[in-house]
Amino acid sequence: MSLGHVAIVGLGLIGGSIAKALREHSAAETICAIDYEATLAAASACIDDGAAPGSPEAGKLLGSADLVVLAAPGQVVLGSVSPALDALRPGAALTDTASFKLAVVERADAHPRKARFVPGHPMAGREVGGFEASRADLFANASWFLVGAGADADAFNRVSKLVLSVGAHPRVIDAADHDRAMAFVSHLPHLVASALLEVAADANALDFAGPGFQDTTRIAGGPDFIWADIFANNREAILSALDAFTQRLDELKSAFAAGEREGVEGALRLLAGARRARGR
Amino acid sequence: MSLGHVAIVGLGLIGGSIAKALREHSAAETICAIDYEATLAAASACIDDGAAPGSPEAGKLLGSADLVVLAAPGQVVLGSVSPALDALRPGAALTDTASFKLAVVERADAHPRKARFVPGHPMAGREVGGFEASRADLFANASWFLVGAGADADAFNRVSKLVLSVGAHPRVIDAADHDRAMAFVSHLPHLVASALLEVAADANALDFAGPGFQDTTRIAGGPDFIWADIFANNREAILSALDAFTQRLDELKSAFAAGEREGVEGALRLLAGARRARGR
Repeated sequence: MSLGHVAIVGLGLIGGSIAKALREHSAAETICAIDYEATLAAASACIDDGAAPGSPEAGKLLGSADLVVLAAPGQVVLGSVSPALDALRPGAALTDTASFKLAVVERADAHPRKARFVPGHPMAGREVGGFEASRADLFANASWFLVGAGADADAFNRVSKLVLSVGAHPRVIDAADHDRAMAFVSHLPHLVASALLEVAADANALDFAGPGFQDTTRIAGGPDFIWADIFANNREAILSALDAFTQRLDELKSAFAAGEREGVEGALRLLAGARRARGR
Repeated sequence: MSLGHVAIVGLGLIGGSIAKALREHSAAETICAIDYEATLAAASACIDDGAAPGSPEAGKLLGSADLVVLAAPGQVVLGSVSPALDALRPGAALTDTASFKLAVVERADAHPRKARFVPGHPMAGREVGGFEASRADLFANASWFLVGAGADADAFNRVSKLVLSVGAHPRVIDAADHDRAMAFVSHLPHLVASALLEVAADANALDFAGPGFQDTTRIAGGPDFIWADIFANNREAILSALDAFTQRLDELKSAFAAGEREGVEGALRLLAGARRARGR
């Protein structure tokens, strides 16, 4: 069974990769996109039709799709959930790809069609963005989180099928758990990697960096507009993660300040904790 | 010109890789090693002779070598510098591979032959250690720091030749600058990666981790005996790096605590700082 008519809002790294993957696997009957003209032209090989954001044509595309994917930047997704549910034809399903989920879920809360919305988050990305960076295999073997609670079974199945069609693994999660966990495994590490780079540069130490430092700081960077949305929409969870992390480092600093033996013992305790964490 | 007779003290990941690389490139007349019997037996294909640590045979090997490489764990290197200089025959050179340099340099300070000693630090490693993890190409294109100050030109040239022979790039550094920089680009990142793993595990978030988190925390771990030596022998520089780093994160935490706008602005300032750092 094909996914039917798929409409993708936003052909950046994620939306573009979805379009290319669906085309490569012939998984949709038609693929339409809503984005600006230059991007639609660049994507002509993997879409059947396109329209500019906010145009009457865009409304028609949304209203005739079996599956609508909001793959625009987070702040745009937040503003698009309710209008997209309004435009959705009966029986169609809606999903999104924003990397924070609670704020997105809340935008659908009061909508009569909220059971047609299955919020999602593909765990795939690159250091570069935009349609020109998109690739058909971006999601191969990646996890793709889905908020399943409250969704109609057929809407959930259609979105799961999208995930499987692009080669990813659907994983059902709770939106609050997701956002709390992302603060620890994505947002905090991103800030930490950036801070490591900055203080190393201030100490004129970057010239001494080897491959280990490159690995640790690879994730620093990324487009500001994406990160600003994340920082704004997951602020409390990030603050909790920062608290837990700085508390752990303050303990370590005290141990190093106390003396050689205390410093070594404190640091080895931390290394042992990390080993245990990996083993869990 | 060959390196002549090379004696390697300690056939772990580093010493074993040096032996394999020298053998592969036929860069030495003979390669001898000082290590325990089982390791010498495992290394029989890349060494010509061997002796147990502290044995009279070991003393003879050290006294007949043109180049002695101390590739044992840091604490063992510290205790070996002076005896190795005592045993060195006239005209021979000594080097080491410990990842901290000031403490090593100090051990030679009062020795009459200190100009024969060229302390070194190859920027190569793996998450696993021991001779069984060693590889002839471990140093290919890696930086290899050398403390050049105070060394005789011919001793320095011989050690540089060793570095070039195994495929690495010699880089002359000051011992104090090296240790200060390593605190920022290696020791602090190691502790930070470990702390990220530990707090993420405590928050039950590891199950949500993607490839970015794996990159950031890859360097966490490694053998305790190596890290204990580093933490003990570079304590003050590590404490300074921890200070600079936690100060930066405390600023960020205050920004996030102040409100959404302040948090986003503070975080984007940090990301911009990291971008500038990369561009330097």
